[in-house]
Order: sequence, then structure tokens, then C-alpha cells
Amino acid sequence: MEMILRQVGVVKNSVKKPIHTPGKETLIEQKEVDILKEKIKELRRETSKIIIDEDLEGVLDGIEDFSHIMVFFWGHKIEKNGRSLTKLRPMRRKDLPLVGLYCTCSPARPNPVLMTVVRLLERNGNILKVTGLDAIDGSPVVDIKPYVKESYPQEDVVAPEWMQRILDEKG
Amino acid sequence: MEMILRQVGVVKNSVKKPIHTPGKETLIEQKEVDILKEKIKELRRETSKIIIDEDLEGVLDGIEDFSHIMVFFWGHKIEKNGRSLTKLRPMRRKDLPLVGLYCTCSPARPNPVLMTVVRLLERNGNILKVTGLDAIDGSPVVDIKPYVKESYPQEDVVAPEWMQRILDEKG
Repeated sequence: MEMILRQVGVVKNSVKKPIHTPGKETLIEQKEVDILKEKIKELRRETSKIIIDEDLEGVLDGIEDFSHIMVFFWGHKIEKNGRSLTKLRPMRRKDLPLVGLYCTCSPARPNPVLMTVVRLLERNGNILKVTGLDAIDGSPVVDIKPYVKESYPQEDVVAPEWMQRILDEKG
Repeated sequence: MEMILRQVGVVKNSVKKPIHTPGKETLIEQKEVDILKEKIKELRRETSKIIIDEDLEGVLDGIEDFSHIMVFFWGHKIEKNGRSLTKLRPMRRKDLPLVGLYCTCSPARPNPVLMTVVRLLERNGNILKVTGLDAIDGSPVVDIKPYVKESYPQEDVVAPEWMQRILDEKG
């Protein structure tokens, strides 16, 4: 079965290159980890525009009634050989355990379909203005879905200690 | 840019055909809506197996420490012409407003990359046993990511009245 994605839009923001090179086996030092964490925070504060193809007219009608949306985009800067790793230390950090790739949100994965829930600030025709999107400028958008909190588990959600630690650090 | 997805696994369950034909403009009667809602509930109670390709050995290591995971799969039964609709009434229901496709989770979309958060019951090597997956038997799996509740907005999440109504009906 052929599964070919069509680009339905594009991300526009001021982040011109990836803040990190995932998909490598070499680890980074604590100092670099700290810089990386700061860059991730900055990226998430960024305001981005998502420009949806004009031939999909109407596809966004009513989206302005949602406060948050899910943006599916393609990790277009992930090199082909960065897509074959199956185990890694999250963010290439020495202090985190070696785990299966599917335990992580690393963009370097067999199919770099990345998803972020973002706050929708404004819709203007085929242009969405959002914050919280950790995509770089030029990322191809492949889908938009509404974010509805009640559709996701709220209770009995368990994550391992190392993931909890990453969350705590985010503050 | 070419964006070709690789099948990394497959869904196995007892649901052999789609419970609904999305992507058509004709609306369905209330009686059919009720049957459909019941079928959706049944589908979500189903236990499914996800069999990950054996050549991705290690990719699931540690996944058993998460209670919930996100499963990304391809809507392989969506016909090509069911992928061009831009506006629809959710679930083809007469009583719901005509909205842009991207306000809905309809599987009939330009890129039928579907995502469900499921409960992980068990991992056995390359096989995951889950509940809550609304995929049919044979659906190609394209990605697995951990579900970490804290990564998603919990406050100030607003959805329109019609979406709230769908959620309330789910009970």
C-alpha cells in the first residue's frame, strides 16, 4: 500500500534551523543539554503562522471556535539516515536511560510525522496564528485536527520516572 | 518534497470493515446515527493487537512503563475521492452544523493519518495489546508515541457547542 502525504500547508516563523540534531548516537554534555532546554522553551514561546493551501477553501471554517488545535507536520530536516535509529537516550542526554524510540517524541523516527497541540490565537482566511508550535520555518503541514481535552485520558495516566523528570524540568 | 510513509506495523482485531462511510455528502437519518454511535462505542471497547515489524527491534523497549500510548495509523479504507471533501456535517448528522473538515476528526481527509490515544494492556516483544483503538483490522501503523498527559493543555481549553454535544453523548 502506498502512503504518500500531500503537503496541505506550511509553517512560517523566525526559527530558520533545527535547534538540535536528533538521530545521532553521540551524547551531549550537560552544558549543551541546558542550552538545548532553553532553546526548546524559546521555540515553544514563538508565534507561528500556518498557511493552508488556498485550494482547500472552507477546510478551516469554524476552527476559530476552538482554543487549541493539533498540528501535524513533517520533520523535513531529518536526514534519511536519522530515521533508522531504534533506541536512544532522550535528547541525547547521558543522564537519561537508553529506551526504545517509540517511548520518546524524538523527531528522528521512521516516519517523522510530528504533532503538537498549540493555542490558536487567530484565524484569518487560510492563515492561522498559533503559539506553542515546535516546528521550524518551512515545515510542511500535513493535517490539522481539533484538540478536545475530553477525548484524551485524564485519569490513571502513568509515565516512567525519566519522562516525569523531563516534564518537571520544563516547569 | 516527497513524504512517503513506511508501514511500521499492523493492527489486528475483530473489526473487519469500516463502521461508517465518511467522506460522502449525503446525510444519514437519526436511526442510523444511533446505530453508528453504538458501533463506535463497541469499537472503542475492542481489544486490538499492534504488531510492530521485527526489523525495528528495540523500538518498543520501555514502552511497558507507559499506561497510554498514541497510535498513528493510516485510514487505508478511505477511497481516494473521499479525501477531497473540505466541509461536512460531523458523522454526516443532519443535526450538526456544516463545518470545515479540520474542525473534525473525520478519517476522510487529504492525509488520512489517524491518531488515537489507547490504553496499553500488555507488551510482548514486538506485540502490543491495547484497548480504545478505533482502527479496523489490517490498518497500517505508521508511528507510536508515548502519551504524557502533562504535555497537553489542561486549562482554558474551549471547544464549540456542537463538539461538546458529541462528547456528552459519548457519556
